[in-house]
Amino acid sequence: MTQVIYVLNGPNLNLLGQREPGIYGATTLEDIKALCLSKAEELGLSIEFLQSNHEGQLVDWIQEAGQRAAGIVFNPAAYSHTSVALQDAIRAVQLPVMEVHLSNIHARESFRHHSFIAPVAKGVICGLGPYGYVVAIEALANYLKQAAKA
Amino acid sequence: MTQVIYVLNGPNLNLLGQREPGIYGATTLEDIKALCLSKAEELGLSIEFLQSNHEGQLVDWIQEAGQRAAGIVFNPAAYSHTSVALQDAIRAVQLPVMEVHLSNIHARESFRHHSFIAPVAKGVICGLGPYGYVVAIEALANYLKQAAKA
Amino acid sequence: MTQVIYVLNGPNLNLLGQREPGIYGATTLEDIKALCLSKAEELGLSIEFLQSNHEGQLVDWIQEAGQRAAGIVFNPAAYSHTSVALQDAIRAVQLPVMEVHLSNIHARESFRHHSFIAPVAKGVICGLGPYGYVVAIEALANYLKQAAKA
Amino acid sequence: MTQVIYVLNGPNLNLLGQREPGIYGATTLEDIKALCLSKAEELGLSIEFLQSNHEGQLVDWIQEAGQRAAGIVFNPAAYSHTSVALQDAIRAVQLPVMEVHLSNIHARESFRHHSFIAPVAKGVICGLGPYGYVVAIEALANYLKQAAKA
Amino acid sequence: MTQVIYVLNGPNLNLLGQREPGIYGATTLEDIKALCLSKAEELGLSIEFLQSNHEGQLVDWIQEAGQRAAGIVFNPAAYSHTSVALQDAIRAVQLPVMEVHLSNIHARESFRHHSFIAPVAKGVICGLGPYGYVVAIEALANYLKQAAKA
Amino acid sequence: MTQVIYVLNGPNLNLLGQREPGIYGATTLEDIKALCLSKAEELGLSIEFLQSNHEGQLVDWIQEAGQRAAGIVFNPAAYSHTSVALQDAIRAVQLPVMEVHLSNIHARESFRHHSFIAPVAKGVICGLGPYGYVVAIEALANYLKQAAKA
Amino acid sequence: MTQVIYVLNGPNLNLLGQREPGIYGATTLEDIKALCLSKAEELGLSIEFLQSNHEGQLVDWIQEAGQRAAGIVFNPAAYSHTSVALQDAIRAVQLPVMEVHLSNIHARESFRHHSFIAPVAKGVICGLGPYGYVVAIEALANYLKQAAKA
Amino acid sequence: MTQVIYVLNGPNLNLLGQREPGIYGATTLEDIKALCLSKAEELGLSIEFLQSNHEGQLVDWIQEAGQRAAGIVFNPAAYSHTSVALQDAIRAVQLPVMEVHLSNIHARESFRHHSFIAPVAKGVICGLGPYGYVVAIEALANYLKQAAKA
Amino acid sequence: MTQVIYVLNGPNLNLLGQREPGIYGATTLEDIKALCLSKAEELGLSIEFLQSNHEGQLVDWIQEAGQRAAGIVFNPAAYSHTSVALQDAIRAVQLPVMEVHLSNIHARESFRHHSFIAPVAKGVICGLGPYGYVVAIEALANYLKQAAKA
Amino acid sequence: MTQVIYVLNGPNLNLLGQREPGIYGATTLEDIKALCLSKAEELGLSIEFLQSNHEGQLVDWIQEAGQRAAGIVFNPAAYSHTSVALQDAIRAVQLPVMEVHLSNIHARESFRHHSFIAPVAKGVICGLGPYGYVVAIEALANYLKQAAKA
Amino acid sequence: MTQVIYVLNGPNLNLLGQREPGIYGATTLEDIKALCLSKAEELGLSIEFLQSNHEGQLVDWIQEAGQRAAGIVFNPAAYSHTSVALQDAIRAVQLPVMEVHLSNIHARESFRHHSFIAPVAKGVICGLGPYGYVVAIEALANYLKQAAKA
Amino acid sequence: MTQVIYVLNGPNLNLLGQREPGIYGATTLEDIKALCLSKAEELGLSIEFLQSNHEGQLVDWIQEAGQRAAGIVFNPAAYSHTSVALQDAIRAVQLPVMEVHLSNIHARESFRHHSFIAPVAKGVICGLGPYGYVVAIEALANYLKQAAKA
Repeated sequence: MTQVIYVLNGPNLNLLGQREPGIYGATTLEDIKALCLSKAEELGLSIEFLQSNHEGQLVDWIQEAGQRAAGIVFNPAAYSHTSVALQDAIRAVQLPVMEVHLSNIHARESFRHHSFIAPVAKGVICGLGPYGYVVAIEALANYLKQAAKA
Repeated sequence: MTQVIYVLNGPNLNLLGQREPGIYGATTLEDIKALCLSKAEELGLSIEFLQSNHEGQLVDWIQEAGQRAAGIVFNPAAYSHTSVALQDAIRAVQLPVMEVHLSNIHARESFRHHSFIAPVAKGVICGLGPYGYVVAIEALANYLKQAAKA
Repeated sequence: MTQVIYVLNGPNLNLLGQREPGIYGATTLEDIKALCLSKAEELGLSIEFLQSNHEGQLVDWIQEAGQRAAGIVFNPAAYSHTSVALQDAIRAVQLPVMEVHLSNIHARESFRHHSFIAPVAKGVICGLGPYGYVVAIEALANYLKQAAKA
Repeated sequence: MTQVIYVLNGPNLNLLGQREPGIYGATTLEDIKALCLSKAEELGLSIEFLQSNHEGQLVDWIQEAGQRAAGIVFNPAAYSHTSVALQDAIRAVQLPVMEVHLSNIHARESFRHHSFIAPVAKGVICGLGPYGYVVAIEALANYLKQAAKA
Repeated sequence: MTQVIYVLNGPNLNLLGQREPGIYGATTLEDIKALCLSKAEELGLSIEFLQSNHEGQLVDWIQEAGQRAAGIVFNPAAYSHTSVALQDAIRAVQLPVMEVHLSNIHARESFRHHSFIAPVAKGVICGLGPYGYVVAIEALANYLKQAAKA
Repeated sequence: MTQVIYVLNGPNLNLLGQREPGIYGATTLEDIKALCLSKAEELGLSIEFLQSNHEGQLVDWIQEAGQRAAGIVFNPAAYSHTSVALQDAIRAVQLPVMEVHLSNIHARESFRHHSFIAPVAKGVICGLGPYGYVVAIEALANYLKQAAKA
Repeated sequence: MTQVIYVLNGPNLNLLGQREPGIYGATTLEDIKALCLSKAEELGLSIEFLQSNHEGQLVDWIQEAGQRAAGIVFNPAAYSHTSVALQDAIRAVQLPVMEVHLSNIHARESFRHHSFIAPVAKGVICGLGPYGYVVAIEALANYLKQAAKA
Repeated sequence: MTQVIYVLNGPNLNLLGQREPGIYGATTLEDIKALCLSKAEELGLSIEFLQSNHEGQLVDWIQEAGQRAAGIVFNPAAYSHTSVALQDAIRAVQLPVMEVHLSNIHARESFRHHSFIAPVAKGVICGLGPYGYVVAIEALANYLKQAAKA
Repeated sequence: MTQVIYVLNGPNLNLLGQREPGIYGATTLEDIKALCLSKAEELGLSIEFLQSNHEGQLVDWIQEAGQRAAGIVFNPAAYSHTSVALQDAIRAVQLPVMEVHLSNIHARESFRHHSFIAPVAKGVICGLGPYGYVVAIEALANYLKQAAKA
Repeated sequence: MTQVIYVLNGPNLNLLGQREPGIYGATTLEDIKALCLSKAEELGLSIEFLQSNHEGQLVDWIQEAGQRAAGIVFNPAAYSHTSVALQDAIRAVQLPVMEVHLSNIHARESFRHHSFIAPVAKGVICGLGPYGYVVAIEALANYLKQAAKA
Repeated sequence: MTQVIYVLNGPNLNLLGQREPGIYGATTLEDIKALCLSKAEELGLSIEFLQSNHEGQLVDWIQEAGQRAAGIVFNPAAYSHTSVALQDAIRAVQLPVMEVHLSNIHARESFRHHSFIAPVAKGVICGLGPYGYVVAIEALANYLKQAAKA
Repeated sequence: MTQVIYVLNGPNLNLLGQREPGIYGATTLEDIKALCLSKAEELGLSIEFLQSNHEGQLVDWIQEAGQRAAGIVFNPAAYSHTSVALQDAIRAVQLPVMEVHLSNIHARESFRHHSFIAPVAKGVICGLGPYGYVVAIEALANYLKQAAKA
């Protein structure tokens, strides 16, 4: 059966590409979804691609993934820095999580240097732009393959 | 008229008992609800037992309790450590609140040692597992009886 | 065309005036809405007046304002101190924001001294009670007039 | 054979009820002892109820409990915040400990928010007044029963 | 009798408009004085408009205001962040104070985020430029009217 | 009836004058006792002069003073910096306390700059050597006289 | 020749007794001056009693004292907590200084717990009210007598 | 002409696979080199693969890369957390750098959470094991391609 | 005359070997005493071997050692981290002190990394288990021999 | 026309050489003035040499320099560590400033390690004694020459 | 076969005894080497005695010891406080390490109180001068003997 | 005999002038060497001008200077902020050191505000660009002349 990967996107990522293209590029979240679907097809995986501005909704989806998915690619955006609830959700479902950030959060304000998600993620990828999602899906697929062997 | 107690449960508590029973035991949130209803019946109280992963929903319910209930038993889970909004809701409705934590949060990571709810709670009970809810309902009933006398 | 101003209110502000009138005064959020509408009419502006206890809902509304409004008057209440998501929403929509607090947050607990909204607001007004909303609308109108000239 | 519970009380608790009854209530430590004995009798337990102003004496008693008791109900009062020696004593004897505080220490000065005892206690109960001792004995009895089953 | 408002200006505000007009605008402190006088006339108030680079002089003027004025509009500039003496002066005279900052101090260096004046001010207004003085005078007038009623 | 003043001395003060006279002077604790008795006689007061190296003993004596004395002159020595129990004892007995330090603790290591006793003392006198005890007794007598008038 | 003592008073002390007599008592700075003169006469000392709201003026007077006086009694008020310049002035003139505070600064806000003057003072006396000045003059006279002997 | 990528490895990475294979896996640094060469060949890039335990040597190689290479894949290992010199070297040569960590440094001791390299890297990839190098080379190739277009 | 060495043991060390032999080994404090006596005999020294759970008792013994001993081997256990009184006692008696810890305190919780005793000890030995006492006695004997020569 | 350099000296520098020559040397501020005048003459510059103990006076002089001078040599002494007002004055006048300290402030108390002036100075010279002024004038002249060329 | 012990010495230890003999004594590093060789011979061990000012060289030697030695006596000198690379090297080779410091680092500047080596060392010995090396070799030999038995 | 001055340059300074001339100017390290040689010739001094990216090499050279030189001009670059080893080397050789920084480190990131070298340097000169080396040599020559007189 095809394994499902949840690709979860946190607050304000729905605005990508629509505003300030000079800064964030013209890539929209729809474009990123297309990139993810294409890569998933290549790897024989199925993708559930979701975005919400609501912390609680993201917790709900992580729990749902716990029932239906093999792993999560997660760009928690602003909630990276403030949400213990998302950390606890990941601990509870015990799925492998790849954390993605479009920008290099370490080159920004100091309150963005800490992530509550990172300590419970398998891997963290930041600064690679939309391409980071592709990398994360590949890395997750790679992880699942190795876990299957073990 | 029967007094109503709201028993509010924060994020991820809906997963209790379904996962990692080796760690958290086999008790589910439904089991805890049953324990609470049984104890409430014994004490002649009515229980509204609710769970949400959404901070805002919990704020809504605290406000609702302010209209309908005599007190709150509250396990804020992860939001204990991050939510000023829940503290403000409790301040606003001025109901007596008993804060409950299943595990001993003082024996975990340091960011779990601080609770925004504790300073506005009447009592805090942690580390007693599901039994802590029973204790909290008894303690709240006891508090209400004494307040009624005063 | 009439410019629209979003007046957004954070958690627990819906309880204003209903409880503890001795402390917060008898002014309700409805009264504040009336004050805002009256001032807006005087200035030839249109007002969208909203309140939510949900951080995600406030993010949604800021994004919506980005499509429909000329500026925002924002009383983020408790989320001032904990929400990076709201800061990011304001950065993303790039509307001028006037932050309002009814009480003087600098005279309260130290965790209320820091606001994640303030660094991305045009102006911050606190301690003036309901009247602060009127001031904020005037200041925003003034800002928009000057920006139109430049 | 009847199980023994040590109920240990830290510095200044001997003054309860004798002074400032307006603040702390008229309940004396003798009254609390009576509450504890009554609850213990109900549960078929034996109580050793002790108070000292001396940190070293409390360490001695914890060690003694290690020889003679099944568990400890402990109100360490001021030593909660300063005594590593008491933490080490509890670690050494490996008895289950229920920590009790009459007042809600989280609503007081910040140096009272940290307890060296809490990380090595099974449960922590605070803010329930004298009633907290009763709760603690029940919770300890409950713990011992479950541990006996396991 | 006409009420007097002291409008006090801290260090370096005398240089406004003369230098770096590209940054601070062409408005001079004289211009701000004119704005204040005009608004005061409209409200039937009298203005004492003063500036000094000397912390002690500002303390002297606050004390003088204590004898002669109904309230103070105060832009303490750099002394906001370093002067306990100015806080004490305000505490001593017990006049209502509206604190004004031309720029948004929360968007600048972290040492500018704390103000010793804010905790003893009635209101704080920042980021509105010269217009902030007008707002502050109105807010103070509003405050005095309400205090007169009470 | 003659009022009694407890003069309590903390750890290591019994060694005064016996060692390192080049540093601490040749004055012994006995000499200080004599100074205190002489001053007390002059003021018509009775003195209980005590020293202990045991924190718990000092707590006991403060409690005893609560039964028998009108006030306390207290040199808590090292326990100033570490004892919450002594602070609580003073709060409980509600006697006026004059804190004395022979040396200027503010000119020593930073961990000596904070005293848990100071916030609950009426006055703090440090750096005056043995003469500080005389000053403290006079100040306490003065305080008692004024309190008697009020 | 009569030794001169400078009694220096920092910002806002000139308002003593004129305002809030319910809090600070009815004693004015003039009354304190009278107390000082009387005590000085008794001890055969001459007093220069001065007050300023200006940090620089206080530095000037400490330097002047360095030329003309045998010691200083100094109530630096708010400048205690912020003035390195006053510390340096005392270091430079190398006169013995007795620091006085009317209130117990350790029982107030935490920013008042630190004094830049204390580490370079001979003694620190706080919380004794106006009487503290009398104590400080006596202590300084005592110090000068002993220094003269040595 | 073929673009050269420097793959630089910090202290102790030469021990990979030789020790504790149960923890770090059996992959040696030679294996990682082979992975990198293979991926580079696929992408038409040339690899310079180097390891040193010497901070200064790593600085030298970064400078050398500045003369010869198009970008750097850098696993700074322990020097991530302590080396300003490596940060400055990267700033000086202005090459794009992809930082790689085999383990998830955010799940380890807190002193490993901060990297001096991250703020000057284009991207950071951690927790993916040896596979992270492959990802980093791809990401760097991708970056170079896009930069060539711009 | 034979030189006396005090070997002082802090709280909970009397429980060594009796509990958790799997962790702390089967060595009891009696065994350590025997090791110390044997080594002392070999070196021609006399040993006073003492243990107490009371901080004050340890202060008393350090003072007693000041009268009777040539040096102290001190395992302050939990009091290392909290006792200024013990530091002051050592300063006062001016005997050479060798501080011993059975475990490596630097590999434990961060509050165990700081010792108030270490800054006034001649040497600190930790992590060597019971053997550390032997080392400390040798080191102290060595120190005394060299001091005797100087 | 001859360029004017303001040489500004902060609090207590007027006492140089008069006191503690063993520590600070016999050089007076007059001597330093002579050194400066001599060096200025050599470089064809004019010097305005001023000293004040008043922060506000120094702000005034910096503003005056903004009208009349080409640059400032500034020894802010104690105000380095506490004055935001002086930083703002320098920002406002936008003259090049060379900060001078006679002693090496980095080898003194930690509160002297931070200077509010340094971030807005062109250069900082400390530890060179009176000679530092000569260096600073040369460096300023050098800077002005290069700026004139650019 | 004779077991080999590496005795590694960090930066500046090669200067021992050559400079400031009044402070550090006349013992040179050569003398310490002789002490070590003599003690090793007595215990039937072989010594590799090395010193370097280069952090990387010390990492290399620890790795080399991992191949050839049974344990390490390590005086990391200044690198104790700054080198994560040395900690990692010790973790990697998993040899028992005895950390030695000639002086009592706890009695020096606060940045010397923390050692990155201590948490991964078996034992830490400081303040015993050259004799500390002898102690460390004995302790290591003792450790190896016991490990061989286990 | 001609006195020798070591001019030591830390990591990445070899890249000066070759890259980013728009930022750092076109001056190369060779140019700075020429400036130094020229100034040295003028003052009758000999210069040893060296650069390394290796902390250990810089320690070696400081030790070498201790044998051959009269003083050191030292630009430690990035190692200023991280190297205790360099501080210890300077302490050990006890040569006068003038610390130079090309840029004003106080106007850069906060981790660059602290220098481990500064507390053991005679003087610190920063922000003067290449000219700072000339100033440092003059200052060192001046220091040596005065030391020779004393």
